Amino acid sequence: MIEESKERYVQVAQIEVDPAQLENYRAAVRKQIEAAIRKEPGVLVLYSVSEEDNPSHITVFEIYQDTAAYKSHLESAHFKKYKAATETMVKSLTLIRMRPIMLGAKGK
Amino acid sequence: MIEESKERYVQVAQIEVDPAQLENYRAAVRKQIEAAIRKEPGVLVLYSVSEEDNPSHITVFEIYQDTAAYKSHLESAHFKKYKAATETMVKSLTLIRMRPIMLGAKGK
Repeated sequence: MIEESKERYVQVAQIEVDPAQLENYRAAVRKQIEAAIRKEPGVLVLYSVSEEDNPSHITVFEIYQDTAAYKSHLESAHFKKYKAATETMVKSLTLIRMRPIMLGAKGK
Repeated sequence: MIEESKERYVQVAQIEVDPAQLENYRAAVRKQIEAAIRKEPGVLVLYSVSEEDNPSHITVFEIYQDTAAYKSHLESAHFKKYKAATETMVKSLTLIRMRPIMLGAKGK
């Protein structure tokens, strides 16, 4: 369990996707997350979920080791590819920087 | 890494706390999360964070093994204690049921 890890870089991304392109968006974000978790030591959590009642409203909960790991992620080939591929799919994007109160998870 | 785990029960809680009671709220939610992760096998993730620019706006990202684990959590002593203790601290609560697109995390 991670507790009050204040050095962690935590962000919530709120993304509205063009409903007509939702399946393509889902495939692109899956590919990006799979690569980031596998290749980047500082990418700890990328949870992408959609609202049950509004599937084109997507939230990504993101935890990076620290600020440097987040910056490095933005420069990665897989992230740049994802951004280019989804440019016309994303109708709006809001990034909210968060501070951990308690990061509780099984088996860490 | 958990991938496309459709049976998981995922929820985002958006909570607005009385700023004057924020430190008490933070202590109560930490206690609740610590107990839930330690005592409940079906509580997988409880990430409580606050907006950097608005610390009384809190988000909790929640992953349970399945619907039964979520229902069991609501009946637990530590959750009921948290709800009673924070009743006067919470100004608004919005619960959003989510569907996983990709749940990526290190070392699972």
